[in-house]
Amino acid sequence: MKAEILTIGDELLRGEIVDSNKSFLGERLLDYDVECRFQTSVGDVPADMIDAFRRAVSRSDVVLVSGGLGPTRDDLTIEVLAETFGRELVLDEASLEVIREFFQRVGREMAENNAKQAWFPRDAEVLANPIGTAPGCALALGPEDTGAGESIVFCMPGVPRELYRMMDEQVLPRIARRRAGASGSLFVRAAVLRTFGVGESSLDADLKDVARDEDVELGFRTSFPDNALRPLARATTADAAEARVAEMVVALRERLGPVLYSETDETLEVVVGRLLAEQGRTLACAESCTGGLLAEKLTRVPGSSGYFLGGVVAYSNEAKQSLLGVPAEMLETHGAVSNEVALAMAEGARDRFGADHAVSTTGISGPDGGSDEKPVGLVSIAIAGPEGSHVDQFVFPLDRERHRQLVVQVGLDWVRRSLLGHELVGPSLLRQRGGGSAPGR
Amino acid sequence: MKAEILTIGDELLRGEIVDSNKSFLGERLLDYDVECRFQTSVGDVPADMIDAFRRAVSRSDVVLVSGGLGPTRDDLTIEVLAETFGRELVLDEASLEVIREFFQRVGREMAENNAKQAWFPRDAEVLANPIGTAPGCALALGPEDTGAGESIVFCMPGVPRELYRMMDEQVLPRIARRRAGASGSLFVRAAVLRTFGVGESSLDADLKDVARDEDVELGFRTSFPDNALRPLARATTADAAEARVAEMVVALRERLGPVLYSETDETLEVVVGRLLAEQGRTLACAESCTGGLLAEKLTRVPGSSGYFLGGVVAYSNEAKQSLLGVPAEMLETHGAVSNEVALAMAEGARDRFGADHAVSTTGISGPDGGSDEKPVGLVSIAIAGPEGSHVDQFVFPLDRERHRQLVVQVGLDWVRRSLLGHELVGPSLLRQRGGGSAPGR
Repeated sequence: MKAEILTIGDELLRGEIVDSNKSFLGERLLDYDVECRFQTSVGDVPADMIDAFRRAVSRSDVVLVSGGLGPTRDDLTIEVLAETFGRELVLDEASLEVIREFFQRVGREMAENNAKQAWFPRDAEVLANPIGTAPGCALALGPEDTGAGESIVFCMPGVPRELYRMMDEQVLPRIARRRAGASGSLFVRAAVLRTFGVGESSLDADLKDVARDEDVELGFRTSFPDNALRPLARATTADAAEARVAEMVVALRERLGPVLYSETDETLEVVVGRLLAEQGRTLACAESCTGGLLAEKLTRVPGSSGYFLGGVVAYSNEAKQSLLGVPAEMLETHGAVSNEVALAMAEGARDRFGADHAVSTTGISGPDGGSDEKPVGLVSIAIAGPEGSHVDQFVFPLDRERHRQLVVQVGLDWVRRSLLGHELVGPSLLRQRGGGSAPGR
Repeated sequence: MKAEILTIGDELLRGEIVDSNKSFLGERLLDYDVECRFQTSVGDVPADMIDAFRRAVSRSDVVLVSGGLGPTRDDLTIEVLAETFGRELVLDEASLEVIREFFQRVGREMAENNAKQAWFPRDAEVLANPIGTAPGCALALGPEDTGAGESIVFCMPGVPRELYRMMDEQVLPRIARRRAGASGSLFVRAAVLRTFGVGESSLDADLKDVARDEDVELGFRTSFPDNALRPLARATTADAAEARVAEMVVALRERLGPVLYSETDETLEVVVGRLLAEQGRTLACAESCTGGLLAEKLTRVPGSSGYFLGGVVAYSNEAKQSLLGVPAEMLETHGAVSNEVALAMAEGARDRFGADHAVSTTGISGPDGGSDEKPVGLVSIAIAGPEGSHVDQFVFPLDRERHRQLVVQVGLDWVRRSLLGHELVGPSLLRQRGGGSAPGR
């Protein structure tokens, strides 16, 4: 089964946005063992779209289209699809009703052009979009349409979150059903293991031999600052494929130790939240250089109010003193970016919020503010808890955004490691300037 | 002059990496007024590559190819290009020497397959790669090759930094020279106007007539919760195109009023930061439901420590009392999600941080925690400043993530509106539950 991806929109060709939908779709196809052979992008130009549709269905069994389903004049995907394959547009009353209800629910008036989104090519199957106004559709084509074999075109919204959901809930099950009808298809199973603290090339070198056999693969996926591993197995039955993946997971778990933080593709903040909830512990934070990112990540998780009490973003020295109780003379003697201040911030947050654990960050994320003694990238990270406090200093030579992300991830990882009784270490490949631990109070 | 982009590599189709080269190339083409009509990606498969090359040169004046120039077996771009257009491969002695020197300089031995990178199709022009081992090449083709008009294929490395440099130093000057020779080509100019508070379909309906003429276009780009407008003009001279865009910007500015927040594609937090710095004012925040996102957005901006003093993430009621001074009886009487508490939080943050302005958020981002009286989506947002305080309550029926994003954007927008003396309104299309203003202290 061969697939191709067609994304539509002038903004893609003009380079205004990076088209991450393509990589998402390619990856999800691979999960279902469907090979993607071509990716094409065209602008909102009917002639180019017609050309792209014709060519795609003539060479691919499945065509995934994203974009151009909106209510505006330059959203032309459905109209042009209907025109290309000689189908008239018909109104889908059910979709119109859903769109009307959507606007009612959000308390907005439905603009007239929103009704346009309820028209589809005759014979197309409508695909629900529970989180947006633009439904998608699936149009199955025969040799008389394609000039070759059978093909099916799936049209999805360009808005990533709507696309992701429609792909997973509506499109992939249909692809799986179509493939089940085809012969000789293999069962594929995969898992995602998330790790933090070791670089991709080290993981690759260390774990190579886990996927020596023909029927398994070990893929790597970097999503800074994490690295995920993707063991995948092919077999003639679903059970056999699942068993092979499970074997690889056991081997990887043993090799990775505490570097592995999730076997179910959870984020680190979800894992930390679950551990805190399970152990009945609470957390607070005190942030300087990370500017609220640590609190923001923790509170992305629904239900985080059960264990996260809050945080202070102490960007100014005055705030470090008045809101966290860091002594003025400590700030003067050691500077805001120091292990002493980081410890005082963590302990201050723990006290003020009455939390079991508290994490703090203070550093120079750049691009300005560095000196010879304290270069851009320098950061002190501390954690305080019932078992004591720990602080360490690092230099992460990264841009502002990635510096903040990595610092937050180290902080979260230290909470996880504390709760599990693991050693508090930083990312293996980065310079560590040294810190220490103190017993609990 | 029409261009298209062809990127080559199995990793692109598998979705292992997001192909940002395409958006870079598309953007740089637009800077040179060259329209990009198609983007295609194919794997390291000779038949698919031949197909893609043939098609590209038959419909485009310029074809930009990236990837497949490396020394390994699956790097096939140059060989397949030569085969497609019947050119033999010839050794470029100068390139071989440069590659040899490169390895000498970095103190590594040159592997035999690196010599492969010095072979090019006869008649191709070699493009220097000063920061990598793979030179690029430009192959000019005539009607006998393309079956259509003249075309030129530029092959560049897939490594982004090498590609960026080769595009700017080698490829764009050659494109400009070719275009200078062509007749009747149009100049294109565009602007990006960022707006907040009005939906895309309303903007489209309201502004339709601004782009009535043939030579101009008005594009829309939604990046939740903002909407950007992209007025674009084509003319026979660069000056004329610029003047047309400027005319549209003037018309749009007048129509949009305070809804327009940037004419230079800046984010709202950058605009707010600039206004605060210009007016010598400082800001603090107190967040409940947004959990740190407001502080995090403000501190994404380098130099934000000059005007942002800090914030409190008061997720628990105790934190609202102890860190922001919200009275316990107020929390009991009105509940944490109320206009009273939002006002007390903003005023508390203003006091504690000694800031000129402070913004607060308290709401129910969901998915749980709602009731009949206080449904999921409810939020109170307040701002306190030297001119007084203001609070309003909204129901945003959005998922957790988007709820937080919209709430933060309203808060930032209120800071902007306060500093510019505009009315403090919420997003126009969302249900507003009512609030009020109080004079300053």
